[in-house]
Amino acid sequence: MKNSLRRLCVVTAAAVMASVAAVALSQEPPKPTPEQAIKYRQSVYKVILWNFGPMSAVAQGKASYDAKAFEHQAGRVATMAPMLIEGYPHGSHTGATTRAKPEIWQNYAEFKELMTAMVGKASALAEVAKEGDEDKSKAAFRELAGACRACHDKYRND
Amino acid sequence: MKNSLRRLCVVTAAAVMASVAAVALSQEPPKPTPEQAIKYRQSVYKVILWNFGPMSAVAQGKASYDAKAFEHQAGRVATMAPMLIEGYPHGSHTGATTRAKPEIWQNYAEFKELMTAMVGKASALAEVAKEGDEDKSKAAFRELAGACRACHDKYRND
Repeated sequence: MKNSLRRLCVVTAAAVMASVAAVALSQEPPKPTPEQAIKYRQSVYKVILWNFGPMSAVAQGKASYDAKAFEHQAGRVATMAPMLIEGYPHGSHTGATTRAKPEIWQNYAEFKELMTAMVGKASALAEVAKEGDEDKSKAAFRELAGACRACHDKYRND
Repeated sequence: MKNSLRRLCVVTAAAVMASVAAVALSQEPPKPTPEQAIKYRQSVYKVILWNFGPMSAVAQGKASYDAKAFEHQAGRVATMAPMLIEGYPHGSHTGATTRAKPEIWQNYAEFKELMTAMVGKASALAEVAKEGDEDKSKAAFRELAGACRACHDKYRND
């Protein structure tokens, strides 16, 4: 092997080893796939619905108001609500069956504002529910439902 | 119509109206179906996994430790963990595809103890993670993973 070629090999090998070492030192966690993100956000919505559903029945007069249960459910929704936005990384408009419209990622700032508004209403409901006042709780629930709908109307397929 | 028959009708109508009113006053919220419970608990597990997965990669040396991210994920798992037990009402051994063994409901007290132990480890991990110490965080994570496995080994089908 000629000297120049040998030198090139040594330099190349050193460069490869250095880059391997750099990767080992700053290993990024594996990014979630779009499918994982879609399944994640759908799961968050399902946990929300598990708690939102009984409150909705109360608000519609289909079930009687139970202050303790309502407070528990409102607290759970307030806890879950801020977890949603993580489930909408760019590129997750496709990858599994999803009702999310691609417009979300074209108007991401507005989408995020609607999410933030909803999180605020969920938090407000959880606070109000602690008072145990049926009418105030129902009114705060309707505020939250409106914030959900505002986003669904614009960014969710039927 | 004879008087006695008329009286019977009036009494019967009054009784029916009273029972309708009683139902309206103490309307139970609709109970979740077994299928809803199964979907709910699977969703809670999925939200847990979304956060547990990246911590697991760190614990296995497949990703580097990021104190802030680890703390966030540990906090989320601790928040979600107590939500699981609600998803195991009696009768929800069937109703949708589920890996939950029917033994859960035969040994429900033990199942609940394993769940409680896991919730404790999740809470401990969230506390430790706040310190930002990699080794302690990984150790607490392994404790949690062990508590998960203890229940999976006994009560989850492969």
